[in-house]
Amino acid sequence: MKKLFFFVMAVFAMQSFDLFAQQALWGGPQIVSPEVRDDKTVTFRFQAPNAKEVKISGDWMPAGQDWKPGSEAMTKGEKGIWTYTTAAMPSDLYGYSFTVDGLKTTDPNNVYLIRDVASVTNVFIVKGDKGDLYSVNKVPHGTVSRQWYNSPGNGMERRITVYTPAGYETSKEKYPVLYLLHGMGGDEEAWIALGRTSQILDNLIAQGKAKPMIVVMSNGNVAQEAAPGESSIGYYKPTMQLPNTMDGKFEETFMDVVKFVESNYRVKAEKSGRAIAGLSMGGYHSLHISRYYPNTFDYVGLFSAAIIPNDKVKSKVYENIDETLKAQLKNGYKLYWIGIGKADFLNKNVKEFREKLDGIGMKYTYCETEGGHTWTNWRVYLSEFAPLLFK
Amino acid sequence: MKKLFFFVMAVFAMQSFDLFAQQALWGGPQIVSPEVRDDKTVTFRFQAPNAKEVKISGDWMPAGQDWKPGSEAMTKGEKGIWTYTTAAMPSDLYGYSFTVDGLKTTDPNNVYLIRDVASVTNVFIVKGDKGDLYSVNKVPHGTVSRQWYNSPGNGMERRITVYTPAGYETSKEKYPVLYLLHGMGGDEEAWIALGRTSQILDNLIAQGKAKPMIVVMSNGNVAQEAAPGESSIGYYKPTMQLPNTMDGKFEETFMDVVKFVESNYRVKAEKSGRAIAGLSMGGYHSLHISRYYPNTFDYVGLFSAAIIPNDKVKSKVYENIDETLKAQLKNGYKLYWIGIGKADFLNKNVKEFREKLDGIGMKYTYCETEGGHTWTNWRVYLSEFAPLLFK
Repeated sequence: MKKLFFFVMAVFAMQSFDLFAQQALWGGPQIVSPEVRDDKTVTFRFQAPNAKEVKISGDWMPAGQDWKPGSEAMTKGEKGIWTYTTAAMPSDLYGYSFTVDGLKTTDPNNVYLIRDVASVTNVFIVKGDKGDLYSVNKVPHGTVSRQWYNSPGNGMERRITVYTPAGYETSKEKYPVLYLLHGMGGDEEAWIALGRTSQILDNLIAQGKAKPMIVVMSNGNVAQEAAPGESSIGYYKPTMQLPNTMDGKFEETFMDVVKFVESNYRVKAEKSGRAIAGLSMGGYHSLHISRYYPNTFDYVGLFSAAIIPNDKVKSKVYENIDETLKAQLKNGYKLYWIGIGKADFLNKNVKEFREKLDGIGMKYTYCETEGGHTWTNWRVYLSEFAPLLFK
Repeated sequence: MKKLFFFVMAVFAMQSFDLFAQQALWGGPQIVSPEVRDDKTVTFRFQAPNAKEVKISGDWMPAGQDWKPGSEAMTKGEKGIWTYTTAAMPSDLYGYSFTVDGLKTTDPNNVYLIRDVASVTNVFIVKGDKGDLYSVNKVPHGTVSRQWYNSPGNGMERRITVYTPAGYETSKEKYPVLYLLHGMGGDEEAWIALGRTSQILDNLIAQGKAKPMIVVMSNGNVAQEAAPGESSIGYYKPTMQLPNTMDGKFEETFMDVVKFVESNYRVKAEKSGRAIAGLSMGGYHSLHISRYYPNTFDYVGLFSAAIIPNDKVKSKVYENIDETLKAQLKNGYKLYWIGIGKADFLNKNVKEFREKLDGIGMKYTYCETEGGHTWTNWRVYLSEFAPLLFK
């Protein structure tokens, strides 16, 4: 009997190259990169024996002239392995890539990649502070679902990402909902991947800092069914500029999202149970949705918001802006939160918008950080905003 | 009023480099690669003005000596852009990478990447037949959830991927369940990413070829909480060999998965509503789980199964193999399905196992395909197996 069975582990060992060749065609050399040390220094390694110059570009490096990404030279060592070691780094999530004799490439020894519009870069985490908040920890975990909802307003089925907090499935309680909107070039994958939404919420809720809540990440590009590669138009190169992203259509049809959520999830379907926030274009969407439906959201968050005019865009959504803001004020709300970086190119315009709110007498909480129009800041804003909700 | 708002689109245009630099540090040149044409030829492009040699390796190319991945030279053209065009290709999902002067790299113009163990490669689809089955089409879509279940047998919370078919949320019916297991080096992300499970099921169900079913993709490495990057051990380089993958522990604790599913989903919690299938190590797991619990699954699928001995592995799971197989036969089952490639290194051993089943009188359906131990085959086996279930 036993001879019919054989010890396949030995075969795996003997034929491991075959297996690997068949199953995962291209293996890499056994190099550790990045190596993140306890003292928060990080070493990157890249094997390129014949290269003349290898550089590393990291999103923690100051940008050079004309906003060109900053970069540092790597040093060639034994076996053609180029290395670069940072000073101790503040705890955070970082992105980087290599440039080999002028060619940008990813790190073949790091499988952790995140797409941002049409760029894919490696990421790593330096633990200790923000890095811990962005990490998976031994805490109760929520569920992340990718599903499809019907949008009669757009005449299509559309993909949506929903986070439900730990315990949702077995609880009988109703939960409040944060609608969390992405920026230009993003989609329903942006907040969950780049934004670390599920890790941030799992950790804040476990620490007792945020209330258990559902987070709904919809796709703000109403011409799209879904993120690149996830819709029926197949594989293509994503672009920053998409039609119908800031022409009122998303705001007009946003109640399709709310209706779907409120009829498919156990939620507090009332103003005090609804928050809306977004980054850049998503901040613009949040501003306009919350005043176009001026008695719907008790919590509004504008992260590096693109404050937009209605001069060239014709939509009823952008008419009577002041009147609807005043109606929103009169109806009452619990939090109007504005966050932006000092170096953000939209800082001046957000300042003008704050002056407008001051003129109307609309109270808001203002959070100004270092840095610019970056995911580094948007993760911070979510981490600051979420604990203020539904209290 | 309006002057407070300004036309940020203009700013986006004027400052588009700033924005892009801040938001997505590294853009690539505007090159289309791969270009998949209607005649099913595919052109790859890679800009490398200073490179001496650029090659492409594709999983459709015959492997060379010692199973080294096949490759083809690309041709240098204008602006330092190297190109390679295939002959018309059979419809399928394919993977590829470039090698530039000896350095393997991904295609910077293709954001579609899939990780297999520790290798990340670009993918593309040639439509028309299998490629259509693996594509997102305008059909009702199921929901894909990543969630966590408690495994008392392993003393930890573990991550799991669950596909529920379109209509599940609004239906009151009970659904059958396919437990779908990955191979060595895989995890709860393998079938949904490399296996195209949600696309295959969405399409087969929409065509009326498969019954609506839930598909549960658990993590077969019981030493792991979750896939690389998704667990509390953080970011690290994944390896093929993991402890406790084939020592009986997964089989022993598999009822933790079944209990979770049957108490959290609306399922047919009976033998006729349960199927179990897996690839390679997951085929081994399916073989042993189905005979260790010999009256639990009416449908069993072994895809390129690693048929394993119990000589060196001590576990009660691997005792009395013949007796439990005979009990399984006596208890009855509806389908025992075996698929393997002619060139698979496990083909001979699957043949020995089939002879063993013949000796016992256990009926099975046998599907022998071209090719080897590859995802190309495993996607085919899922596409063949799923329509046979729960009829």
